[in-house]
Amino acid sequence: MRIVVLKFGGTSVGKISKIKKVAEIIENYKKKKYKVIVVSSAMSGVTNDLIKKSKEISKNFSDTEYDVLVSSGEQVACSLISGRLNHKGLKSRSWLAWQIPVYTEGFHKNSRIIKINKSKILKYLKEGGTPIIAGFQGINNKDRITTIGRGGSDASAIMLAKFFKAERCVIYTDVEGVYTTDPNKLKKAKKIKEISYEEMLEMASLGAKVMQPVSIQDARLNRIDVEVKSSFVRKSGTLITKKSNITQNKIITGITSTNNDAKITLLGVKDKPGVAASIFKPLSEKSINVDMVVQNISANGKETDLTFTIKSEDLNKTKNLIKDNKKINFRKLVLENGVSKLSIIGVGMVTTPGVTFRMFQTLANKRINIKVISTSEIKISVLIDKKNTKKALVALHKEFKLDK
Amino acid sequence: MRIVVLKFGGTSVGKISKIKKVAEIIENYKKKKYKVIVVSSAMSGVTNDLIKKSKEISKNFSDTEYDVLVSSGEQVACSLISGRLNHKGLKSRSWLAWQIPVYTEGFHKNSRIIKINKSKILKYLKEGGTPIIAGFQGINNKDRITTIGRGGSDASAIMLAKFFKAERCVIYTDVEGVYTTDPNKLKKAKKIKEISYEEMLEMASLGAKVMQPVSIQDARLNRIDVEVKSSFVRKSGTLITKKSNITQNKIITGITSTNNDAKITLLGVKDKPGVAASIFKPLSEKSINVDMVVQNISANGKETDLTFTIKSEDLNKTKNLIKDNKKINFRKLVLENGVSKLSIIGVGMVTTPGVTFRMFQTLANKRINIKVISTSEIKISVLIDKKNTKKALVALHKEFKLDK
Repeated sequence: MRIVVLKFGGTSVGKISKIKKVAEIIENYKKKKYKVIVVSSAMSGVTNDLIKKSKEISKNFSDTEYDVLVSSGEQVACSLISGRLNHKGLKSRSWLAWQIPVYTEGFHKNSRIIKINKSKILKYLKEGGTPIIAGFQGINNKDRITTIGRGGSDASAIMLAKFFKAERCVIYTDVEGVYTTDPNKLKKAKKIKEISYEEMLEMASLGAKVMQPVSIQDARLNRIDVEVKSSFVRKSGTLITKKSNITQNKIITGITSTNNDAKITLLGVKDKPGVAASIFKPLSEKSINVDMVVQNISANGKETDLTFTIKSEDLNKTKNLIKDNKKINFRKLVLENGVSKLSIIGVGMVTTPGVTFRMFQTLANKRINIKVISTSEIKISVLIDKKNTKKALVALHKEFKLDK
Repeated sequence: MRIVVLKFGGTSVGKISKIKKVAEIIENYKKKKYKVIVVSSAMSGVTNDLIKKSKEISKNFSDTEYDVLVSSGEQVACSLISGRLNHKGLKSRSWLAWQIPVYTEGFHKNSRIIKINKSKILKYLKEGGTPIIAGFQGINNKDRITTIGRGGSDASAIMLAKFFKAERCVIYTDVEGVYTTDPNKLKKAKKIKEISYEEMLEMASLGAKVMQPVSIQDARLNRIDVEVKSSFVRKSGTLITKKSNITQNKIITGITSTNNDAKITLLGVKDKPGVAASIFKPLSEKSINVDMVVQNISANGKETDLTFTIKSEDLNKTKNLIKDNKKINFRKLVLENGVSKLSIIGVGMVTTPGVTFRMFQTLANKRINIKVISTSEIKISVLIDKKNTKKALVALHKEFKLDK
């Protein structure tokens, strides 16, 4: 059987007219003789409305009932899609997690799919049926409804693709694919045809809009080809696949930039084990998200300087937490608001010398000062003045030939 | 165990503030040491909105998917009620039909509950839990979600009361109980304290607003005491029970009246078997609801007169259907629009002579002409001019001492 898993996000099923469009997309795959497994999210807005209701009921709304509540949204979307396919004369039905079942473990609101019973769905596929499976939900070993924390319906789709050995998992959403950089920031941004799992993970700040990183990681671990595309326009999207499948030959795949970051440097921190942990523990407790962390080697073996970035709005709170922290010693605290992290990402840089130099030279030519540098195998990130972000983005996008 | 089943209708859970009120009502029963089983409808408006969506998807929306779609409404309401009880520190959880299970048979959209697996709920009650059970839904022997056609959540509540041998089934709704007559038509209408199942069934035109006749019949067959009351005001409602439990001593329990009826008389119909069926078959096919049917004995053994009532708006359609009906013969067709059916109901009339006379005398005193008379053991219905309805209602309400 040639199986394909099609996942439709909330905006793809947000209106009745869009659900009709979704039914057409499914029909087209059926015409190509695929066995189609569909996964749907709730109609856009529905889940948020249910969450709002739960908060009005209680500020500490029960986790178990939360899962019962919000999972109703996918139930509605799936029945409407099935109903539309039936209307077109196609054999289709909705499948809720308990009917398959899809088993999860872990806590409520944050469960993971561990097993999918294949027999009923396989039988249904063989009979020519198109199952419309409620994403985001499962049941646990007590027959309670659970929801998949991170990844949501994307995670459901990836796991279904894994268990049913699907040829491909297509994620339909409201964007046309993954772009070389955020098209809202740079009009010249181009849709990427193919991207490796690893690059996609590094591009999380772009990728999160199309797919949760945790689901990309699931796809990577199970070697599932994932195509991200729009349900509104008939154009090919972006294929997320393994490195060896990539036929394009670009050194750099994409560029990401952040807004509204702040930089904090602790000068003269004692260079001994546990210091970094002592610095970050109170921040983590207050849910302050630390992004880039850079620490140079100690010049004198006793002291070092530690720099990290956070969101601008957390700067004051972070400053106070550090000042009030009795467990750490440092000579001076340097704060800088209004910085931006710029990253170039590409598996090509592993085998291509001089990428780092080209990036730095490009920025230097534009008289943009680099404050901090951090690199991984397939990514180089620099911290620059926020006001230079656009200029840097344009220059690098051109330098690495992403405009074409 | 002293078990009570509490059923909350759509308006009782129509807003978050009302759900909080519902949680208080449940808490009060718990304080009285009852084991409480709760059945909830969907929040008012939700089911209609879902049905509207289904119609937009297809004019022939699949029955199986319809059940999946609309049953989601009860799921939401139940999780919110449970969440609120949890918030108050009470042990409670939602139970969907498949989790219990509640088994049904019959067609989708119109199933009947045939069995309720008691073990899990009994265990939960013994542990001190308050189960909030989704009304209106069940599953069939193929593990598909079904909905209960007529009666809806009321039927669920009555069947739960039956299977769990509940002391009482309380139907919470947006009216305070059953009245001697429609309070919108007669301000002097009084709330009835106790009423027999049989009277309640005869008062369907009033009763339908508080409870579906099919559920009253279920309660009657299973001898379940049903209390209808408001979830908004703390007042006792109306107890629907068996005749022998009725402590009140009124001859007449209530008076009902219809609006916008039309009367059709076929004069000189052939008096032979099958004629009535031939008359009503085409009406039934066009979903024209025939209410009162009266046929006198044949004076000459050959011909008879047949009178029946329908809704005013169906008069023209009905006239044409009768004229076009080749299977029947009659001498003359007499049509009259603007009539009203007035009924007095009460088990007391069985043992009290002269009730019929008193009704007719009362109307005669007011110079109200009686067009047609039809009686059952506990009901007398007359057809009068619509313009006299209010006058007749007032006079009869007084005559049978219902004002007090």
